Amino acid sequence: MGEPRWLDDREAQVWKMYRDLRRDLQSAQDRQLLRDSGLSGADYALLVPLSTAPDGLLRSRELGLEVGWERSRLSHQIIRMEKRGLVTREPCVDDARGSMVRLTAEGRAAIEGAAPLHVETVRRCFFDPLTPREIETLGILMGKMLDAVGREQG
Amino acid sequence: MGEPRWLDDREAQVWKMYRDLRRDLQSAQDRQLLRDSGLSGADYALLVPLSTAPDGLLRSRELGLEVGWERSRLSHQIIRMEKRGLVTREPCVDDARGSMVRLTAEGRAAIEGAAPLHVETVRRCFFDPLTPREIETLGILMGKMLDAVGREQG
Repeated sequence: MGEPRWLDDREAQVWKMYRDLRRDLQSAQDRQLLRDSGLSGADYALLVPLSTAPDGLLRSRELGLEVGWERSRLSHQIIRMEKRGLVTREPCVDDARGSMVRLTAEGRAAIEGAAPLHVETVRRCFFDPLTPREIETLGILMGKMLDAVGREQG
Repeated sequence: MGEPRWLDDREAQVWKMYRDLRRDLQSAQDRQLLRDSGLSGADYALLVPLSTAPDGLLRSRELGLEVGWERSRLSHQIIRMEKRGLVTREPCVDDARGSMVRLTAEGRAAIEGAAPLHVETVRRCFFDPLTPREIETLGILMGKMLDAVGREQG
Protein backbone atom coordinates (compact mmCIF):
# COMPACT_ATOMS: atom_id res chain seq x y z
CA MET A 1 0.00 0.00 0.00
CA GLY A 2 1.23 3.53 -0.86
CA GLU A 3 0.68 6.73 1.10
CA PRO A 4 -2.48 6.46 3.30
CA ARG A 5 -5.47 8.23 1.72
CA TRP A 6 -6.27 10.34 4.81
CA LEU A 7 -9.71 11.96 4.96
CA ASP A 8 -9.92 15.63 3.98
CA ASP A 9 -11.66 18.10 6.34
CA ARG A 10 -15.15 17.64 4.87
CA GLU A 11 -14.83 13.85 4.76
CA ALA A 12 -13.59 13.77 8.36
CA GLN A 13 -16.60 15.90 9.32
CA VAL A 14 -19.09 13.60 7.51
CA TRP A 15 -17.45 10.52 9.06
CA LYS A 16 -17.75 12.09 12.53
CA MET A 17 -21.42 12.90 11.84
CA TYR A 18 -22.06 9.27 10.97
CA ARG A 19 -20.38 8.06 14.18
CA ASP A 20 -22.19 10.69 16.28
CA LEU A 21 -25.54 9.80 14.70
CA ARG A 22 -24.96 6.10 15.35
CA ARG A 23 -24.06 6.76 18.99
CA ASP A 24 -26.68 9.42 19.79
CA LEU A 25 -29.56 7.72 18.01
CA GLN A 26 -28.76 4.47 19.83
CA SER A 27 -28.62 6.36 23.16
CA ALA A 28 -31.95 8.09 22.46
CA GLN A 29 -33.55 4.75 21.58
CA ASP A 30 -32.07 3.05 24.65
CA ARG A 31 -33.28 5.80 27.01
CA GLN A 32 -36.78 5.73 25.52
CA LEU A 33 -37.03 1.94 25.78
CA LEU A 34 -35.86 1.85 29.37
CA ARG A 35 -38.12 4.71 30.43
CA ASP A 36 -41.29 3.58 28.67
CA SER A 37 -40.93 -0.21 28.62
CA GLY A 38 -38.25 -1.24 31.14
CA LEU A 39 -36.22 -2.88 28.36
CA SER A 40 -32.55 -2.27 27.57
CA GLY A 41 -31.34 -1.62 24.04
CA ALA A 42 -29.67 -5.05 24.16
CA ASP A 43 -32.99 -6.70 25.15
CA TYR A 44 -34.75 -5.03 22.24
CA ALA A 45 -31.96 -5.89 19.78
CA LEU A 46 -32.50 -9.61 20.48
CA LEU A 47 -36.30 -9.45 20.79
CA VAL A 48 -36.69 -7.99 17.28
CA PRO A 49 -35.24 -10.91 15.28
CA LEU A 50 -36.80 -13.48 17.64
CA SER A 51 -40.26 -11.91 17.26
CA THR A 52 -40.16 -12.27 13.47
CA ALA A 53 -38.66 -15.79 13.41
CA PRO A 54 -41.03 -18.79 12.88
CA ASP A 55 -42.27 -19.94 16.33
CA GLY A 56 -40.02 -17.24 17.86
CA LEU A 57 -37.13 -19.70 17.60
CA LEU A 58 -33.56 -19.05 16.36
CA ARG A 59 -30.19 -20.76 16.67
CA SER A 60 -27.89 -18.76 18.98
CA ARG A 61 -25.48 -18.53 16.08
CA GLU A 62 -28.07 -16.96 13.76
CA LEU A 63 -29.11 -14.55 16.50
CA GLY A 64 -25.46 -13.52 16.94
CA LEU A 65 -25.07 -12.87 13.21
CA GLU A 66 -28.30 -10.88 13.24
CA VAL A 67 -27.05 -8.43 15.91
CA GLY A 68 -23.33 -8.64 15.04
CA TRP A 69 -22.16 -9.32 18.60
CA GLU A 70 -19.31 -11.45 19.86
CA ARG A 71 -20.27 -14.79 21.36
CA SER A 72 -19.58 -13.81 25.00
CA ARG A 73 -21.66 -10.65 24.84
CA LEU A 74 -24.54 -12.59 23.27
CA SER A 75 -24.39 -15.39 25.78
CA HIS A 76 -24.36 -13.04 28.81
CA GLN A 77 -27.31 -11.15 27.41
CA ILE A 78 -29.34 -14.31 26.72
CA ILE A 79 -28.75 -15.50 30.31
CA ARG A 80 -29.96 -12.14 31.65
CA MET A 81 -33.10 -12.32 29.50
CA GLU A 82 -33.77 -15.93 30.46
CA LYS A 83 -33.71 -14.96 34.16
CA ARG A 84 -36.36 -12.36 33.43
CA GLY A 85 -38.54 -14.85 31.57
CA LEU A 86 -38.24 -13.15 28.15
CA VAL A 87 -36.59 -16.14 26.41
CA THR A 88 -35.74 -19.78 27.07
CA ARG A 89 -32.70 -21.72 25.88
CA GLU A 90 -33.09 -25.11 24.25
CA PRO A 91 -30.63 -27.67 22.95
CA CYS A 92 -30.16 -27.66 19.20
CA VAL A 93 -31.81 -30.67 17.55
CA ASP A 94 -29.16 -31.19 14.87
CA ASP A 95 -26.01 -29.78 16.48
CA ALA A 96 -25.08 -31.12 19.92
CA ARG A 97 -22.76 -28.17 20.64
CA GLY A 98 -25.22 -25.54 19.41
CA SER A 99 -28.17 -24.02 21.24
CA MET A 100 -31.45 -22.41 20.31
CA VAL A 101 -33.20 -19.39 21.81
CA ARG A 102 -37.00 -19.22 21.98
CA LEU A 103 -39.12 -16.16 22.65
CA THR A 104 -41.58 -16.74 25.53
CA ALA A 105 -45.15 -15.40 25.59
CA GLU A 106 -43.87 -12.84 28.09
CA GLY A 107 -41.07 -11.84 25.70
CA ARG A 108 -43.55 -11.41 22.87
CA ALA A 109 -45.79 -9.29 25.07
CA ALA A 110 -42.76 -7.17 26.04
CA ILE A 111 -41.79 -6.32 22.47
CA GLU A 112 -45.38 -5.81 21.34
CA GLY A 113 -45.88 -3.42 24.24
CA ALA A 114 -42.65 -1.56 23.49
CA ALA A 115 -42.99 -1.26 19.71
CA PRO A 116 -45.50 1.64 19.36
CA LEU A 117 -43.45 4.14 21.40
CA HIS A 118 -40.22 2.80 19.96
CA VAL A 119 -41.30 3.39 16.37
CA GLU A 120 -42.40 6.88 17.37
CA THR A 121 -38.81 7.65 18.49
CA VAL A 122 -37.43 6.26 15.20
CA ARG A 123 -39.89 8.51 13.33
CA ARG A 124 -38.99 11.65 15.26
CA CYS A 125 -35.21 11.15 14.97
CA PHE A 126 -34.79 9.47 11.61
CA PHE A 127 -37.74 10.09 9.27
CA ASP A 128 -39.53 13.27 10.40
CA PRO A 129 -36.45 15.52 9.73
CA LEU A 130 -36.35 14.34 6.07
CA THR A 131 -38.69 14.89 3.14
CA PRO A 132 -39.95 11.77 1.26
CA ARG A 133 -37.47 12.62 -1.51
CA GLU A 134 -34.60 12.86 0.99
CA ILE A 135 -35.58 9.48 2.50
CA GLU A 136 -35.45 8.04 -1.03
CA THR A 137 -32.00 9.60 -1.59
CA LEU A 138 -30.73 8.30 1.75
CA GLY A 139 -31.86 4.79 0.78
CA ILE A 140 -29.96 5.03 -2.52
CA LEU A 141 -26.75 6.25 -0.85
CA MET A 142 -26.89 3.58 1.87
CA GLY A 143 -27.50 0.91 -0.81
CA LYS A 144 -24.21 1.89 -2.49
CA MET A 145 -22.39 1.77 0.84
CA LEU A 146 -23.91 -1.62 1.74
CA ASP A 147 -22.72 -3.02 -1.60
CA ALA A 148 -19.20 -1.80 -0.85
CA VAL A 149 -19.26 -3.24 2.68
CA GLY A 150 -20.50 -6.55 1.26
CA ARG A 151 -17.47 -6.68 -1.03
CA GLU A 152 -15.18 -6.45 2.05
CA GLN A 153 -16.35 -9.87 3.17
CA GLY A 154 -15.56 -11.54 -0.15
CA MET B 1 -50.56 9.30 21.98
CA GLY B 2 -52.93 8.26 19.19
CA GLU B 3 -52.52 5.40 16.74
CA PRO B 4 -48.82 4.43 16.32
CA ARG B 5 -47.32 5.88 13.14
CA TRP B 6 -45.97 2.54 11.85
CA LEU B 7 -43.33 2.65 9.13
CA ASP B 8 -44.54 2.04 5.57
CA ASP B 9 -42.74 -0.53 3.39
CA ARG B 10 -40.15 1.85 1.97
CA GLU B 11 -39.46 3.43 5.38
CA ALA B 12 -39.08 -0.01 6.98
CA GLN B 13 -36.64 -0.90 4.19
CA VAL B 14 -34.57 2.28 4.69
CA TRP B 15 -34.55 1.76 8.46
CA LYS B 16 -33.32 -1.82 7.96
CA MET B 17 -30.61 -0.56 5.58
CA TYR B 18 -29.41 1.87 8.26
CA ARG B 19 -29.26 -0.89 10.88
CA ASP B 20 -27.55 -3.31 8.48
CA LEU B 21 -25.01 -0.66 7.45
CA ARG B 22 -24.27 0.13 11.10
CA ARG B 23 -23.76 -3.55 11.92
CA ASP B 24 -21.87 -4.63 8.80
CA LEU B 25 -19.60 -1.59 8.61
CA GLN B 26 -18.71 -2.07 12.28
CA SER B 27 -17.99 -5.78 11.64
CA ALA B 28 -15.83 -4.97 8.60
CA GLN B 29 -13.87 -2.41 10.62
CA ASP B 30 -13.48 -4.78 13.57
CA ARG B 31 -12.23 -7.63 11.38
CA GLN B 32 -9.73 -5.36 9.60
CA LEU B 33 -8.40 -3.95 12.89
CA LEU B 34 -7.94 -7.36 14.47
CA ARG B 35 -6.33 -8.85 11.37
CA ASP B 36 -3.94 -5.99 10.60
CA SER B 37 -3.26 -4.48 14.03
CA GLY B 38 -4.31 -6.98 16.71
CA LEU B 39 -6.77 -4.44 18.16
CA SER B 40 -10.47 -5.01 18.85
CA GLY B 41 -13.12 -2.53 17.77
CA ALA B 42 -13.61 -1.69 21.45
CA ASP B 43 -9.87 -0.97 21.85
CA TYR B 44 -9.95 1.35 18.87
CA ALA B 45 -13.13 3.10 20.01
CA LEU B 46 -11.38 4.15 23.24
CA LEU B 47 -7.96 4.85 21.68
CA VAL B 48 -9.40 7.42 19.25
CA PRO B 49 -10.71 9.97 21.80
CA LEU B 50 -7.69 9.39 24.09
CA SER B 51 -5.23 10.01 21.25
CA THR B 52 -6.73 13.44 20.51
CA ALA B 53 -7.13 14.52 24.18
CA PRO B 54 -4.45 16.85 25.67
CA ASP B 55 -1.69 14.66 27.16
CA GLY B 56 -3.76 11.60 26.15
CA LEU B 57 -5.74 12.05 29.37
CA LEU B 58 -9.54 11.90 29.87
CA ARG B 59 -11.90 11.41 32.78
CA SER B 60 -13.54 7.96 32.61
CA ARG B 61 -16.87 9.77 32.56
CA GLU B 62 -15.94 11.82 29.48
CA LEU B 63 -14.59 8.73 27.77
CA GLY B 64 -17.88 6.94 28.46
CA LEU B 65 -19.89 9.81 26.96
CA GLU B 66 -17.60 9.84 23.94
CA VAL B 67 -18.28 6.18 23.09
CA GLY B 68 -21.82 6.01 24.51
CA TRP B 69 -21.26 2.86 26.58
CA GLU B 70 -22.69 1.88 29.94
CA ARG B 71 -20.33 2.19 32.89
CA SER B 72 -19.74 -1.56 33.38
CA ARG B 73 -18.84 -2.17 29.73
CA LEU B 74 -16.44 0.79 29.82
CA SER B 75 -14.79 -0.29 33.04
CA HIS B 76 -14.24 -3.92 31.87
CA GLN B 77 -12.73 -2.66 28.63
CA ILE B 78 -10.37 -0.22 30.40
CA ILE B 79 -9.12 -3.00 32.69
CA ARG B 80 -8.44 -5.23 29.66
CA MET B 81 -6.50 -2.44 27.96
CA GLU B 82 -4.54 -1.60 31.11
CA LYS B 83 -3.38 -5.23 31.34
CA ARG B 84 -2.04 -4.96 27.79
CA GLY B 85 -0.21 -1.71 28.56
CA LEU B 86 -2.32 0.49 26.25
CA VAL B 87 -3.66 2.79 29.01
CA THR B 88 -3.14 3.48 32.71
CA ARG B 89 -5.78 4.46 35.26
CA GLU B 90 -5.15 7.39 37.60
CA PRO B 91 -7.16 8.90 40.44
CA CYS B 92 -9.09 12.04 39.52
CA VAL B 93 -7.48 15.15 41.01
CA ASP B 94 -10.73 16.98 41.76
CA ASP B 95 -13.22 14.13 42.24
CA ALA B 96 -12.28 11.45 44.78
CA ARG B 97 -14.86 9.00 43.35
CA GLY B 98 -13.89 9.65 39.73
CA SER B 99 -10.99 8.22 37.76
CA MET B 100 -8.90 9.27 34.78
CA VAL B 101 -7.59 7.20 31.87
CA ARG B 102 -4.25 7.99 30.27
CA LEU B 103 -2.93 6.74 26.92
CA THR B 104 0.52 5.15 27.28
CA ALA B 105 3.33 5.53 24.71
CA GLU B 106 2.51 1.97 23.70
CA GLY B 107 -1.17 2.85 23.26
CA ARG B 108 -0.26 5.82 21.09
CA ALA B 109 2.04 3.65 18.97
CA ALA B 110 -0.80 1.11 18.61
CA ILE B 111 -3.32 3.62 17.24
CA GLU B 112 -0.76 5.37 15.04
CA GLY B 113 0.21 1.99 13.59
CA ALA B 114 -3.44 0.99 13.04
CA ALA B 115 -4.71 4.27 11.54
CA PRO B 116 -3.43 4.04 7.92
CA LEU B 117 -5.10 0.68 7.15
CA HIS B 118 -8.15 1.62 9.19
CA VAL B 119 -8.78 4.80 7.21
CA GLU B 120 -8.37 2.78 4.01
CA THR B 121 -11.28 0.53 5.11
CA VAL B 122 -13.43 3.58 5.92
CA ARG B 123 -12.64 4.95 2.44
CA ARG B 124 -13.49 1.73 0.63
CA CYS B 125 -16.79 1.18 2.49
CA PHE B 126 -18.06 4.68 3.15
CA PHE B 127 -16.57 7.25 0.75
CA ASP B 128 -15.42 5.45 -2.41
CA PRO B 129 -18.99 4.28 -3.32
CA LEU B 130 -20.23 7.91 -3.30
CA THR B 131 -19.51 10.89 -5.55
CA PRO B 132 -18.31 14.13 -3.88
CA ARG B 133 -21.80 15.52 -4.42
CA GLU B 134 -23.40 12.47 -2.75
CA ILE B 135 -21.02 12.82 0.22
CA GLU B 136 -22.15 16.44 0.53
CA THR B 137 -25.82 15.35 0.39
CA LEU B 138 -25.24 12.63 3.00
CA GLY B 139 -23.69 15.23 5.30
CA ILE B 140 -26.74 17.49 4.92
CA LEU B 141 -29.21 14.66 5.62
CA MET B 142 -27.28 13.43 8.67
CA GLY B 143 -27.08 17.02 9.96
CA LYS B 144 -30.90 17.20 9.96
CA MET B 145 -31.14 13.85 11.75
CA LEU B 146 -28.51 14.86 14.34
CA ASP B 147 -30.53 18.04 15.09
CA ALA B 148 -33.64 15.92 15.65
CA VAL B 149 -31.78 13.45 17.88
CA GLY B 150 -30.35 16.39 19.85
CA ARG B 151 -33.89 17.62 20.55
CA GLU B 152 -34.73 14.22 22.13
CA GLN B 153 -32.32 14.96 24.97
CA GLY B 154 -33.89 18.34 25.79
